[in-house]
Amino acid sequence: MRATSLKSKFVQIRSNKLFELVVIAVIIFSALLVGAKTYEMSETLISVSIFLDWFITIFFLTEITIRFVAEPRKRDFFKNFWNLFDTLIVFVSLIPAENTDMALIARLVRVFRVLRMISIIPELRLLLTSLVKAMPQLGYVMLLMFIIFYIYAAIGSTLFETINPVLWGDITVSMLTLFRVMTFEDWTDVMYETMEVYPLSWIFYLTFIFLSAFAFLNMVIGIVVNVMEQENVKARQEKMELMGEPTIADLAKQLTQIQQQLAELTKK
Amino acid sequence: MRATSLKSKFVQIRSNKLFELVVIAVIIFSALLVGAKTYEMSETLISVSIFLDWFITIFFLTEITIRFVAEPRKRDFFKNFWNLFDTLIVFVSLIPAENTDMALIARLVRVFRVLRMISIIPELRLLLTSLVKAMPQLGYVMLLMFIIFYIYAAIGSTLFETINPVLWGDITVSMLTLFRVMTFEDWTDVMYETMEVYPLSWIFYLTFIFLSAFAFLNMVIGIVVNVMEQENVKARQEKMELMGEPTIADLAKQLTQIQQQLAELTKK
Amino acid sequence: MRATSLKSKFVQIRSNKLFELVVIAVIIFSALLVGAKTYEMSETLISVSIFLDWFITIFFLTEITIRFVAEPRKRDFFKNFWNLFDTLIVFVSLIPAENTDMALIARLVRVFRVLRMISIIPELRLLLTSLVKAMPQLGYVMLLMFIIFYIYAAIGSTLFETINPVLWGDITVSMLTLFRVMTFEDWTDVMYETMEVYPLSWIFYLTFIFLSAFAFLNMVIGIVVNVMEQENVKARQEKMELMGEPTIADLAKQLTQIQQQLAELTKK
Amino acid sequence: MRATSLKSKFVQIRSNKLFELVVIAVIIFSALLVGAKTYEMSETLISVSIFLDWFITIFFLTEITIRFVAEPRKRDFFKNFWNLFDTLIVFVSLIPAENTDMALIARLVRVFRVLRMISIIPELRLLLTSLVKAMPQLGYVMLLMFIIFYIYAAIGSTLFETINPVLWGDITVSMLTLFRVMTFEDWTDVMYETMEVYPLSWIFYLTFIFLSAFAFLNMVIGIVVNVMEQENVKARQEKMELMGEPTIADLAKQLTQIQQQLAELTKK
Repeated sequence: MRATSLKSKFVQIRSNKLFELVVIAVIIFSALLVGAKTYEMSETLISVSIFLDWFITIFFLTEITIRFVAEPRKRDFFKNFWNLFDTLIVFVSLIPAENTDMALIARLVRVFRVLRMISIIPELRLLLTSLVKAMPQLGYVMLLMFIIFYIYAAIGSTLFETINPVLWGDITVSMLTLFRVMTFEDWTDVMYETMEVYPLSWIFYLTFIFLSAFAFLNMVIGIVVNVMEQENVKARQEKMELMGEPTIADLAKQLTQIQQQLAELTKK
Repeated sequence: MRATSLKSKFVQIRSNKLFELVVIAVIIFSALLVGAKTYEMSETLISVSIFLDWFITIFFLTEITIRFVAEPRKRDFFKNFWNLFDTLIVFVSLIPAENTDMALIARLVRVFRVLRMISIIPELRLLLTSLVKAMPQLGYVMLLMFIIFYIYAAIGSTLFETINPVLWGDITVSMLTLFRVMTFEDWTDVMYETMEVYPLSWIFYLTFIFLSAFAFLNMVIGIVVNVMEQENVKARQEKMELMGEPTIADLAKQLTQIQQQLAELTKK
Repeated sequence: MRATSLKSKFVQIRSNKLFELVVIAVIIFSALLVGAKTYEMSETLISVSIFLDWFITIFFLTEITIRFVAEPRKRDFFKNFWNLFDTLIVFVSLIPAENTDMALIARLVRVFRVLRMISIIPELRLLLTSLVKAMPQLGYVMLLMFIIFYIYAAIGSTLFETINPVLWGDITVSMLTLFRVMTFEDWTDVMYETMEVYPLSWIFYLTFIFLSAFAFLNMVIGIVVNVMEQENVKARQEKMELMGEPTIADLAKQLTQIQQQLAELTKK
Repeated sequence: MRATSLKSKFVQIRSNKLFELVVIAVIIFSALLVGAKTYEMSETLISVSIFLDWFITIFFLTEITIRFVAEPRKRDFFKNFWNLFDTLIVFVSLIPAENTDMALIARLVRVFRVLRMISIIPELRLLLTSLVKAMPQLGYVMLLMFIIFYIYAAIGSTLFETINPVLWGDITVSMLTLFRVMTFEDWTDVMYETMEVYPLSWIFYLTFIFLSAFAFLNMVIGIVVNVMEQENVKARQEKMELMGEPTIADLAKQLTQIQQQLAELTKK
């Protein structure tokens, strides 16, 4: 009986507006703490920050526990991606940070607590969801881009390795160099260097730039426009249906009724 | 009685086409004066420019006064954003510029008088309004971008601070460095430096570039397309209504009338 | 009588397919000649190129004359922008190139003969026309951009002149520097230099980049999408009308006829 | 009789799911081999890689033979672009790679075997097809761009040749320099150099950047949006037809039937 009363209390807390605001405040505070740690700090401030770190960890742990207990079906709690995400971040930050070997990793892990901003604000969750939804459509474009990169990197590595092993040493390094060329970052320096040995190597760079940058841009824009239009069409249809405006199909039904009426009239 | 006649005179002046043109001419002239001051000038010219500055200030003051007096309801005058904007610019430039300490600030304030170009030309006002309208839709994208920047800056500052304190010293400087990476401005120099210590740090830069530049671009394009389409749909509907072209709803009404006629016929 | 027969002959020539092809061939040849002149040439080749230049000039002059004579109404000839454009290019290249003082200018003028490629190929003419049509819509965006540039250049010139007079000397030079910043070309070098004196000057650059690059991009995309959609709507309507497919307006007419028929029936 | 049984066996093999997977596995393996060769390898590994190269070549040859024999009409086999593409790649890699003179070329040819990834995955083939389809629409934009480049390169080469022959030596080199300016890659260095001799040469660069980058971007976006919309319209129409939803034309037919019924009624 006592457990149930505790649970109902937790359900109350979870839906409390003040509780929500306190959680957001603590998340923002933990983000500011992460930022503050990147500045030079006195010994005292470091001790305070360690204490605050533990406070935030315990607060988040309590919050997750409340949410978990308040959930009517325990299984559904972990079916929700964002609950899983929050739990993972909270449990990972339980790793002790005082140990010198692990200190760096522990600090990095605490940075990811800022990501809870996304899970707590519904609009950001929506943005991320729509981005993830666009991913499968981009999958094949990415694969095509990877094949283009791979072929050019193999050619570049074969021809230019002796000219500049730092840029064209093996296929991995060559792909990084090609990514640099794609972002137009000092790409002429890379080109002029190889043009001294192979005067026609500008063809290599120009075809690569055209194929990658251009094709990529076009296809990405295409997909984005596509996704947006589909959503617009959906939105318009929903609006029309909501407004109860007749569609062409409604007109066709009405006409069929008229034809039946006429048929009856003709019979008479 | 005299006040009313003055007011009606001011109303006349305000709607006078010549008055409008004179105001635009003075604004353009004040902009040219601001530009001229950036060049080397002889003593005489400096004296002339100070005199012209006062002339422009007084002219603008007179103009705003005329507009204010001509306004039937004084409260509505300040409800209009552009009136408020004009008044602010004019009053701020009343700060004396001769004082050596304030000279720089006074010169900067006078620069903003060029902004009156926007308030005087309706098309520019419309452009700015449509830009401001798109802002709330961009708000959450900006917040998401800020979170991505903040997390990467915290990681970068933690890992790379000892490598180059100028670029990665604290979280503020790291965010500036990341903005630089996002604009592809010598980003490989930043990367090659950290790759000497952490050979895998290219993952940090590539994931950041993909997440920021790519996600940002997609979402911005999406929103722009969205806004534009909504306006197009509106425009088309308005045109259709203006042209008195029948809609599907009109057809449905006509059909219902026919059905009533048929019903009457059947009764007979 | 003889003039008329000459004219009718010219009309025949003008609409001759072979004549068209010969003109295109000569234009391409004149373009190649312009290109060839940029390479080192022997004395003999230079003489040949001067001779060829005169041949092309005379050929173009003859061609324009034929077109002019063949035109039924002389006034309409110069109402066509492309005829005016061709005539201007041909007459300007009559300026003698042998004079050493004028040699450079004469060479430059001959370069513009390549532009006749645009006037002779209808598809290129269409592209240019659609570009020019988009201009007025861009006019106000350009003006807004110019105002933003002007204000930032005035501020930059006031604050940073003593730091680097080459980049921020006067308002013209400052605007060029700002254009450089907008293209992200070594903009951090410009920023780091001023940040040594004014540590907060990154605000100047970041707000400028956001305002200019971002606002500009958004608005340009918006306008392009707008123009393209309008043309699409037009194209669809034209197709529908061509295919004789009924519109909603046609349906409404048919319905009105039915109502009249029913009214007659009811009378009976 | 035996040939036919062999053929039917090959048809079976071709449509076998396992055979498909083995082919994809060998293609991926050949891609990895191409990548592995760019790293330093011991003598033993080089011998192994040569052996594996021959294994892949023979495997691909066998695969193509099976596909060819299994084809009912031999002519149709080469009408398919992708079959032709595969056959070409396989036959070209038969060139012996051991010969030192040809070693480099042979290695490069083997790189193109990675392209078989595109021919084996239908989605990639579709992407490439849609890209090729967009090409003719881009043809005239490319031509316009080429004319702009050609004219600016001719002017640049005429004026700036004496300033920097490496960048502006002849029209080909000038066009490469202009492409560099278009990608904003250290374009101010190029400009500042010529501005020392011709202080107004910034006009040359700015007009070029505006004409090329801007016009190009606009038109490309326009075309992409265009293509995407056409495909969307198609997709929608197909969906509508599939769903058996009535069109305006269907309504018109129904109305005509009603009018005929009414006409009969009136006769009675």
